[in-house]
Amino acid sequence: MWQAFRMSNPSPIDELFAFLRFASVSTEPRHQEDVKACAGWLVEKFRSMGLSAALHETAGHPVVLARNAHQPGRRTVLIYGHYDVQPVDPLELWSHPPFEPRIVNGKIFARGATDNKGQILAHILGVEQALQRDGDLPVNVIFLVEGEEEIGSPNLRGFLEAHRDELQCDVVAISDTGMLAPGVPTFTYGLRGIVALEVKVKGPALDLHSGIFGGAIANPATMLARLVATLHDAQGRVAVEGFYDDVAPLQDWERELWRQLPVSDAELLTLTGAPGLFGETGYSSTEQMWARPTAEVNGLGGGFQGVGSKTVIPKEAFVKLTFRLVPNQDPQKIAALVQAHLEQHCPPGVTLEITAGHAGMPYVMDPHSPYGQAAQRALKATFGREVALIREGGSIPIVQTFKDVLGVETMLLGLALPDCRAHAPDENFPVENFEAGMRLNAALLKELANR
Amino acid sequence: MWQAFRMSNPSPIDELFAFLRFASVSTEPRHQEDVKACAGWLVEKFRSMGLSAALHETAGHPVVLARNAHQPGRRTVLIYGHYDVQPVDPLELWSHPPFEPRIVNGKIFARGATDNKGQILAHILGVEQALQRDGDLPVNVIFLVEGEEEIGSPNLRGFLEAHRDELQCDVVAISDTGMLAPGVPTFTYGLRGIVALEVKVKGPALDLHSGIFGGAIANPATMLARLVATLHDAQGRVAVEGFYDDVAPLQDWERELWRQLPVSDAELLTLTGAPGLFGETGYSSTEQMWARPTAEVNGLGGGFQGVGSKTVIPKEAFVKLTFRLVPNQDPQKIAALVQAHLEQHCPPGVTLEITAGHAGMPYVMDPHSPYGQAAQRALKATFGREVALIREGGSIPIVQTFKDVLGVETMLLGLALPDCRAHAPDENFPVENFEAGMRLNAALLKELANR
Repeated sequence: MWQAFRMSNPSPIDELFAFLRFASVSTEPRHQEDVKACAGWLVEKFRSMGLSAALHETAGHPVVLARNAHQPGRRTVLIYGHYDVQPVDPLELWSHPPFEPRIVNGKIFARGATDNKGQILAHILGVEQALQRDGDLPVNVIFLVEGEEEIGSPNLRGFLEAHRDELQCDVVAISDTGMLAPGVPTFTYGLRGIVALEVKVKGPALDLHSGIFGGAIANPATMLARLVATLHDAQGRVAVEGFYDDVAPLQDWERELWRQLPVSDAELLTLTGAPGLFGETGYSSTEQMWARPTAEVNGLGGGFQGVGSKTVIPKEAFVKLTFRLVPNQDPQKIAALVQAHLEQHCPPGVTLEITAGHAGMPYVMDPHSPYGQAAQRALKATFGREVALIREGGSIPIVQTFKDVLGVETMLLGLALPDCRAHAPDENFPVENFEAGMRLNAALLKELANR
Repeated sequence: MWQAFRMSNPSPIDELFAFLRFASVSTEPRHQEDVKACAGWLVEKFRSMGLSAALHETAGHPVVLARNAHQPGRRTVLIYGHYDVQPVDPLELWSHPPFEPRIVNGKIFARGATDNKGQILAHILGVEQALQRDGDLPVNVIFLVEGEEEIGSPNLRGFLEAHRDELQCDVVAISDTGMLAPGVPTFTYGLRGIVALEVKVKGPALDLHSGIFGGAIANPATMLARLVATLHDAQGRVAVEGFYDDVAPLQDWERELWRQLPVSDAELLTLTGAPGLFGETGYSSTEQMWARPTAEVNGLGGGFQGVGSKTVIPKEAFVKLTFRLVPNQDPQKIAALVQAHLEQHCPPGVTLEITAGHAGMPYVMDPHSPYGQAAQRALKATFGREVALIREGGSIPIVQTFKDVLGVETMLLGLALPDCRAHAPDENFPVENFEAGMRLNAALLKELANR
């Protein structure tokens, strides 16, 4: 076979390193060209494997589509991933430059190593290996790799709608979720939704001397704090009126199943380094993270940020909020409730400027459905262990969009470890998970062919 | 007289511009050399006037001392000022570069124009003019110009104690306070004190993905907001237990006098651009600003600060707090009460790291005392109008230190206008106030000689 003579092929790790070197930070305008170059690299990669591939421009960052030669009568799986990554700040906390990947103690360190370049490339290289080995795949495959997942996929729904025909498929597969622990195959049957808001609290026209004016002028930073403090009650519940109205209660079977999972609060404390756990009264930590909604401050700021002191009443202060949602909360409805809450609780002497951010629906599917079972068989075959059935606290809004637009369910076969540091400094992905991902791709395509 | 031939003398404005060009920001280590160069410039200026002058190193920034030839039997006045300035950020809000002074519509724009370079240089040039005109001064003068006022004068008390003998004087004069309105001569007989604290709220060991972990882990930014929100009650009073215990009540005569001052809440709103006033219930705005204590957030921050969103639970968040104090509150006692309050109200799941900042005593003197009356006569002679008697909300902790160490009172003869933007972008000082300051110096020295 001629493949045996392709000695100059880069290794999977070399390929992943090349993919990781693109600083494809979708939220930062200065990285726009890096994002585009990364998309171009993917197109070339797909074409070099013998797939047909194209880069599709959107109002934001491009979508990359690729497919093998589809055959009628075969099942079609759409494998989704994203090539954009989170920002890297605080940069000073990285042990190595985030876009200069390296392997330390069997783990690949780089921004995007786990989320999502390592995971999507494992699927891509799994397909490449199958094509090299067998000359064909057992199913029809569509790769859809987007560049706006980390900013809420604002253009993907429109893209799906515009390309509905060529994207027709039987099921979607995504590896962008977590494994419960190293070596524990994990099938995720639910995700939280999200809605983001940015609030600016505005006071005087300029920063004021806090000695000269302090006492008579409302301080926007103080008032921002007072406003944020209204978001929760003392029991850790979100205090926005109507927030819980549509929340689907946890099912007994899942609460029971989760109680038996090999996870503990002690491990969560070790993993996060938090001085203590805190959450909504009446729920376990897994329940709080996987199946209960939240209000989180992702960033706040105002006034003097430097070393030492500067005695000002700042003219304004901001807070970036996200709310994680669970079935059957609706992001638009929650955004309206939150906005009403903020306006109602706006402290005296300041005004609010509220900017709506991205939003995504929560998702849940039946893990006992045929596709759910096929995915679990593939996971079990790859890792040789019983599969953990979980939901996850993160948001992949596109999952609900696939359901809405293409009418299909999504199998979430995560390869991320709990300590992968996604979104944080020193993000990493074990080499063994990368290799497992390639095997998982082969097992999954085989299960889907057989089903 | 030979002075008539000194045609090459720079003008007072040229001299002020040269002084203002030094980026003598005392709180920022990167400006250490600028601070030092500015002190050196002052020493040369004093010597060129025929005064004896020296630069005195301290553990921080240098103190500049200068004096004329003292004569026994004459009264001695110590004129205090500072050559250090506040930071300039947010730099982008300045209309012109802050260290490139220029005159627009009769106002000098630069960092330090009012606070305090313009005001102290008016005294220096007033003395120079008297020496050039009369060959002598009617009193003994000591200039003490320090470089750490904006960071709380940490080394000045020690300096005063070490140089107590050579600093013996009858009274201190300072122009570092405000005028009630343009053209209204203003004598300030009280100042607020200050105590600064920085609080860090610490949570997980690293920024966490707010989807994956949100709900079970306390968010340090949220908890910071909750903590800050405990500092005030709904009536705008500081809610720290014991905070008001030592507060000296306002006197009837001063409340009555202040009610008659030509100031209004409408003007305060116009001046500050604030959407509304807010302060402690039961006190007028002037009372709130001049004679009631406060808790202010000067800066807070945590989590993602960039454009767009980054869905993290930040590992920590910080707040920079200052408390303005009034007679007879003690900064150390208040700092201890605040620290106890913060620890008592520390929210669950996070830890606190509290760093004490600078502190200064509040001050009040009797405006009807002989020196108070001399100062008011000099102000009236300079501006040709009745003098407004006020207290001020800012802090010049050194005033109490002069009383403690040298046993003398301080006359506060301010030249700053309400819209001078001290500590803010576009700080400015009217040319006419600079010129009035030189006349005020002459009138004051004459009044002190006559008294």
